[in-house]
Amino acid sequence: MGRPGRKAVLDNLGFIRKEQNIDFVIANGENAAGGHGITKEIARQLYAAGVDVFTMGNHVWNKKEIITYIDKEKRLLRPANYPPGTPGAGFNIFETKSGHSIAVINVSGRIYMQELDCPFRTVDQILEEIKGKTKLIFVDFHAEATSEKVAMGWYLDGRVTAVCGTHTHVQTADERILPKGSAYITDIGMTGPRDSVIGVSTHLVIEKFITQMPRRFEVAETGYQFNAVVIDVDPVNGSALKIERIFELE
Amino acid sequence: MGRPGRKAVLDNLGFIRKEQNIDFVIANGENAAGGHGITKEIARQLYAAGVDVFTMGNHVWNKKEIITYIDKEKRLLRPANYPPGTPGAGFNIFETKSGHSIAVINVSGRIYMQELDCPFRTVDQILEEIKGKTKLIFVDFHAEATSEKVAMGWYLDGRVTAVCGTHTHVQTADERILPKGSAYITDIGMTGPRDSVIGVSTHLVIEKFITQMPRRFEVAETGYQFNAVVIDVDPVNGSALKIERIFELE
Amino acid sequence: MGRPGRKAVLDNLGFIRKEQNIDFVIANGENAAGGHGITKEIARQLYAAGVDVFTMGNHVWNKKEIITYIDKEKRLLRPANYPPGTPGAGFNIFETKSGHSIAVINVSGRIYMQELDCPFRTVDQILEEIKGKTKLIFVDFHAEATSEKVAMGWYLDGRVTAVCGTHTHVQTADERILPKGSAYITDIGMTGPRDSVIGVSTHLVIEKFITQMPRRFEVAETGYQFNAVVIDVDPVNGSALKIERIFELE
Amino acid sequence: MGRPGRKAVLDNLGFIRKEQNIDFVIANGENAAGGHGITKEIARQLYAAGVDVFTMGNHVWNKKEIITYIDKEKRLLRPANYPPGTPGAGFNIFETKSGHSIAVINVSGRIYMQELDCPFRTVDQILEEIKGKTKLIFVDFHAEATSEKVAMGWYLDGRVTAVCGTHTHVQTADERILPKGSAYITDIGMTGPRDSVIGVSTHLVIEKFITQMPRRFEVAETGYQFNAVVIDVDPVNGSALKIERIFELE
Ligand SMILES: [Fe+2]
Ligand SMILES: [Fe+2]
Ligand SMILES: [Fe+2]
Ligand SMILES: [Fe+2]
Ligand SMILES: [Fe+2]
Ligand SMILES: [Fe+2]
Ligand SMILES: [Fe+2]
Ligand SMILES: [Fe+2]
Repeated sequence: MGRPGRKAVLDNLGFIRKEQNIDFVIANGENAAGGHGITKEIARQLYAAGVDVFTMGNHVWNKKEIITYIDKEKRLLRPANYPPGTPGAGFNIFETKSGHSIAVINVSGRIYMQELDCPFRTVDQILEEIKGKTKLIFVDFHAEATSEKVAMGWYLDGRVTAVCGTHTHVQTADERILPKGSAYITDIGMTGPRDSVIGVSTHLVIEKFITQMPRRFEVAETGYQFNAVVIDVDPVNGSALKIERIFELE
Repeated sequence: MGRPGRKAVLDNLGFIRKEQNIDFVIANGENAAGGHGITKEIARQLYAAGVDVFTMGNHVWNKKEIITYIDKEKRLLRPANYPPGTPGAGFNIFETKSGHSIAVINVSGRIYMQELDCPFRTVDQILEEIKGKTKLIFVDFHAEATSEKVAMGWYLDGRVTAVCGTHTHVQTADERILPKGSAYITDIGMTGPRDSVIGVSTHLVIEKFITQMPRRFEVAETGYQFNAVVIDVDPVNGSALKIERIFELE
Repeated sequence: MGRPGRKAVLDNLGFIRKEQNIDFVIANGENAAGGHGITKEIARQLYAAGVDVFTMGNHVWNKKEIITYIDKEKRLLRPANYPPGTPGAGFNIFETKSGHSIAVINVSGRIYMQELDCPFRTVDQILEEIKGKTKLIFVDFHAEATSEKVAMGWYLDGRVTAVCGTHTHVQTADERILPKGSAYITDIGMTGPRDSVIGVSTHLVIEKFITQMPRRFEVAETGYQFNAVVIDVDPVNGSALKIERIFELE
Repeated sequence: MGRPGRKAVLDNLGFIRKEQNIDFVIANGENAAGGHGITKEIARQLYAAGVDVFTMGNHVWNKKEIITYIDKEKRLLRPANYPPGTPGAGFNIFETKSGHSIAVINVSGRIYMQELDCPFRTVDQILEEIKGKTKLIFVDFHAEATSEKVAMGWYLDGRVTAVCGTHTHVQTADERILPKGSAYITDIGMTGPRDSVIGVSTHLVIEKFITQMPRRFEVAETGYQFNAVVIDVDPVNGSALKIERIFELE
């Protein structure tokens, strides 16, 4: 999130990719640009730093340029359950460094969020559409309510490689391989400013809650935290073998 | 949560208390009885198993008997920011096994929750009221939105021993000693059924999300998970020295 | 709503039908049974009293028997934007007393309500499906937010005979023929207990707001109010000629 | 609301004041400036046109200049249930043209709105504070949910002269003198652009609902509607004698 988040990626991602021999990197980029959306230029920097694909969320349209850019850049996904006709795509199939096909699906929750199409039925349709094309399927479920996120994990268990939640900006400790072989975590957390309220300057958020008056939120300029998960997979049957959290503080 | 949660406490709490030499146990009990509220009898069992104090949350009044019971049982707290005149108390001072005074404060968030009094001002008033009585002050902030919870952590940093979140039923991985000495975690998680959607039978929740038709939720009857944090404190100045998560699966 | 509402219908509907020479009566029945849902028996009574078709809303499934009944009773509609596979239908074509074909569509809003399919696209699909079958098309838009309701009115202007809102239980004063010929009102109001908080006993609702403790809501047993609109139509082109509110107090 | 709303006031208010011999004019001004907030200059124009006091709502702080202006201008109120320390006042006592003292109270709902202090208790405290100073007491309850608004009407019946709702921008048809003498209406409606979605350009709102993409809302530039209520009072005992809606279309 914001500049500290980009610094965290630039400082760490190359090293982690190499050290852990990582084949493919998916990052939620909805807060990459000053906390609001992403720009073409920032996406370019982060692709260069080792991100393979960006997923997004409720902040996808914050930077206007994305509305036209997203149709040209297949590595930038937006939630698949936006209405038909929405610019961009909600899933795509990519090739990993080692040459495997991998599907990435981005979908958004609805509880306490926007009025979108059903995320469960949307994923069903996508799985139908990509059937036979790849066994490696990663889902970023960008959602608020833990009930909706955990339910999605169980709903897709055995049908996808991993369901990873985003949006709350706080990493959860419930990472796990579900009984039928899908990796699951409720929220991967945030790569961004460390001493902050989910990325935003602490005093601004506290003031807003106490006074109930508007505050223009700014990305906190502190040290950073790097949040991620590393998932080992069986590329033959598409199941997950291991999921491990990374929670680094600078 | 529910029977599996009670079993998890009966099986583990005594052992952990002894092994880790724990001086005082605070548990959120709002889902102890079949997922909804708590009863006098269940509270009695869990006190016997080693719980010292119960905090509650939005499910506090689910069992009617609590409305009268809570005024007699000072070890059972409800969120302090309910309106004046609400039965029960939102904080109290207790004595630990080793003879230290300890204040426990229960307070609820407002974002995506009930229309209550300001939790930040409520805690300020309580801290004023208990000033000089004890340095050991534990806050259970029962809230949904991560922004509100993290903000409360920073708001109270250096003024209380610990701010521990509850309500989402998913443990977070952001436990930490904040710069001025308060322990913090966004959510302690749930002690309850393991293979479930935040405690409820998986298929019922999935059906509800997909059909949008009502489902009577039942506590899942699976193995259990035991979620908790252990906090080391300096009883002289009230600061936290260490916070450690427990996430056991049966 | 509830018994006073049923009495209001029994006392008035026959008279009004005759006096105003009304050809077809559509009623929202989601609160007909004690404030929660409708039963087969109550529906039967109200059909006998002059209701031709019931629309429903968020309370549609409150009485369990409806889940099977709704598939047999084509005069009982539920919101069309429930997921595919939901029991019952969201629209149907009926015949008026004078022999005209008339389509009735029931659809629900999403703002501050359930997570349903897009009501705008849902109505588009239905209009496509019934194209050529009748020009007389009535839409009950069961929704909370005035913005969503007014937007639906403009969206359908010239394509349907009338868009009438329900759900807030308070009649609005903005009835109007829109420029392209559709009748519109944001909310028709409630036929039910007069001295009440949208049908519920006043003291129970006030207590709930002030104490934030649960209250079992009961239908107020006072005199009644009868709320409705009467719409004159041109059966040839399907446009509305006049919309008139009825707001009777017993 | 916006320029059409200001034109509606300038065109009509003087005439109505004279014709109906109106002694005091209260207007909700939260959308006076381009749909968002109010400015010093716009307030000045509208005072000149015949407004005596402005109440506000959730848009009170949209124009930054108000934060300092509101402390100097006692004729500009903001909801009284903002936290202590908020700039401005939530009530005040004024003098009508004919020399009567009149209290105006502005308070906000909480359901589907901001996290504010309890509006019911807030009004209780204000009534205590102004006791004995005047019998004429007008309350603008700026709220979304009909249940909360109707409940406030009944809660204050017999203790104030009138409870008038605002915020939904759609006038309701339930104006009434309650049994103990208070005038009540759920929503006075909006004085602003006529062919619009609660003041905003129709096509922008429809697009936003259908695409779920952000749209910069603009005040519709159409003819206007003038919405108001006229209340006759008994200045001796403070009760309302009559409440009449005005709903003019240009
Ligand atoms: Fe985000
Ligand atoms: Fe997000
Ligand atoms: Fe809970
Ligand atoms: Fe809870
Ligand atoms: Fe209803
Ligand atoms: Fe409803
Ligand atoms: Fe407004
Ligand atoms: Fe408003």
